[in-house]
This record gives sequence, structure tokens and C-alpha cells, in this order.
Amino acid sequence: MKLYFATGTCALASHIALEEAGAEYSTVRINFAASQQRSPEYLAINPKGRVPSLVTDKGILTETPAMLAYIAQSYPKAKLAPLEDAFRFAEVQAFNSYLCSTVHVAHAHRMRGHRWVDDPSAIDAMKKKVPETVATCFDLIESKMLQGPWVMGETYTICDPYLFTLAQWMEGDSVDPARFPKVKAHRDRMSERPAVRKVVAAEKG
Amino acid sequence: MKLYFATGTCALASHIALEEAGAEYSTVRINFAASQQRSPEYLAINPKGRVPSLVTDKGILTETPAMLAYIAQSYPKAKLAPLEDAFRFAEVQAFNSYLCSTVHVAHAHRMRGHRWVDDPSAIDAMKKKVPETVATCFDLIESKMLQGPWVMGETYTICDPYLFTLAQWMEGDSVDPARFPKVKAHRDRMSERPAVRKVVAAEKG
Repeated sequence: MKLYFATGTCALASHIALEEAGAEYSTVRINFAASQQRSPEYLAINPKGRVPSLVTDKGILTETPAMLAYIAQSYPKAKLAPLEDAFRFAEVQAFNSYLCSTVHVAHAHRMRGHRWVDDPSAIDAMKKKVPETVATCFDLIESKMLQGPWVMGETYTICDPYLFTLAQWMEGDSVDPARFPKVKAHRDRMSERPAVRKVVAAEKG
Repeated sequence: MKLYFATGTCALASHIALEEAGAEYSTVRINFAASQQRSPEYLAINPKGRVPSLVTDKGILTETPAMLAYIAQSYPKAKLAPLEDAFRFAEVQAFNSYLCSTVHVAHAHRMRGHRWVDDPSAIDAMKKKVPETVATCFDLIESKMLQGPWVMGETYTICDPYLFTLAQWMEGDSVDPARFPKVKAHRDRMSERPAVRKVVAAEKG
């Protein structure tokens, strides 16, 4: 498999999952500063002009929740999702769906406001509310969702690299991690995993 | 299973899927006009204060993509997803993830702008861009995603009720369906299915 990623994006979640799965994979760095995600070559891979994309021998996948589930299903020995229990699997999917449709979207209003509005003063108004909206998401994760020590309890799953990835953005969104001790402890715990250290170093590369 | 829904929301997708699956289910209507989604009773079911929620004998699920996949996995005879093929299943998930994280979110900036901004003039500025952002989504669906006659080609899947649900909102978002003939034909094709007619009538109730 070949993962297209950019540093500081949600591609980190799939990158970590590939490493945790013990997958054979390569990576291609997309340079956002040079708008490489909008190049004809990249749009041929992913017409959305976003990362991540995962090129497999069966076709190309996009969208983090789908890619994470596919990685878990392709490497069942790594036990990255409760594949044998449809309800538990749905809980994993529900968590990841919340991250992509609500938490990531709340965060995106700081740097990507132009997606939804043209007026510069409205873009500024959006930025102003990001600390509140992102904190509201982490409040819910802290109080209702993160079971601990891993998202789904005792077993590490594809929810963990995804939460870790989005939790990287708290400081940039002016959200104090100290307000969310369980999320903070999860982030620290993740940082110590060999797969995470390796991938974070590789993305910095 | 018990589905909590409100009329005119994305809960319609799961409602149709339950009907297509031949599931035994009941429904509970949540009255948004009376802010019932924020009542302590409902927040005990879904702390996000949103619909849909699906109460099962194993626990409660939220998030449309997760609920749709769970319905497909719980009623395999209905063949609502390519459960035996992890890659095809991931493609289904990727499509549904795009609907929830990008298409639904673009639409939500018309009526739910207060989620991301406080300033009333910024809320108005958001509304102004909705016809463009939603049309951009349907452009991509029309040109790259919808295989026809169903989203995934010859086989009806859980992508179809979800696309149908979001395509209901085009006119309200000032997007002309005539610009998207494949999406329009899909919506018409869906409208003729007995399960869809039944559920649409029940939600109007």
C-alpha cells in the first residue's frame, strides 16, 4: 500500500495504523505549501485534493474512517478493531465518525474558513470561536467517550491513532490540554508507543 | 431496535435502511421545534443532543455511517453492503464518510451556522456561500462517485439511502438538481422504492 500524506494533517492516523498493523507500505509526502494537493497528478489519485489517500492493489481509498477500518480488516492479526463483533465495530466507527464530521470540522474553521465563507471578517469571526467549539468536543470525549486507557477500554484500536492525531491540534486551537486530563494522558501514552515514535519522526523527516 | 429521528434530518437514511433490511424496529420522533433533543431524557440517550440515535439490545449507537454499517451487518440477508469484500466495504464507508464530513457539513452552514460562529453578519456570510459549497460537493458526486444506477453500481447499498437523504436538501440550499442529472435520476429512482415511500410517509405522519 502507498499512503499519500502531509505533515500536520489527519493522514497521521492512517500512517500510525499502517505501522501498528505491521503492513508493508510506502509513503509519498504531499507539499501543501506548494499546493501539490491541487496538482493534476494528485487530483488523478484523489479528486478531492485532500490527504490522506491510500493506494492499494485493489484501488484507491480516501476518508480516514474508511481507511482505518480497511487497514484493520486487512491485517486482522494486529487486532486493531473488534472485527468479530458488529456492535463493538460500530462503536469504533461511531467514534471515528464523530472525529471526522465534528471534531476535525470544528478545528478546520481556524485555518480553512475559506471553505465555507468568502468575507474576510467572517473568516476572522470563525477563528474566534474555534477554541470554544473544539473544547466542547474534547469535553464530550473526556466525559463520555474515552474509556481509558485506550478509547475503547483495555484494547487498543483504530480509534486511538485518530484521537491522538486530532489531539495534537489542541494547543494550536488555543485549547488547554490540562482541562482534559484523560485525553492528555491518552496523548502521552500514545507518544510512548514505538510505532507512534517511528511515524512521527518519519513525518518530520 | 428503536430509532430516534426528526423529520428533515439525516436520520432518514438509517430509517430507510432499517426498512430495506426488513428489521423489526420502532421509531421515536424528536421535536426539534420544542428543543426536545436538548431535554435531559434525550441527552441521556445521546449526549450530543442530535439525531439519529439507534437503541439496540447491545447498547446505543449514534453517527449515521456507523449506524448504516451496523444495520447492514445485522441483516446480512438484505445485502445492503459488500460485507465479504473488505475493499468494497471500505469504498462504501468512504462514500458515506464524505457525505457526513463534507456534504452534510457544507449544508449545515445554512441553518446551523451558530455552531461555528457567533457574529450574526458572519452567519449571514456563511449562508451566502452554501449554494456554491453544496454544488461543489454534488459536482464531485455526479462526475466521480455515483456509478449508477446505484451509488456503487448495479447493487443497492447503504450509500443509496444516505445520498437520497442529503439530495433532498438541494432545493433548500438553492442548488438546482437539474445541474446534476445522475443525482437527480438517483433521487427519482429512490423515491419509487416501496421502502422509501413507506418511510417518507411515516416521517411526515
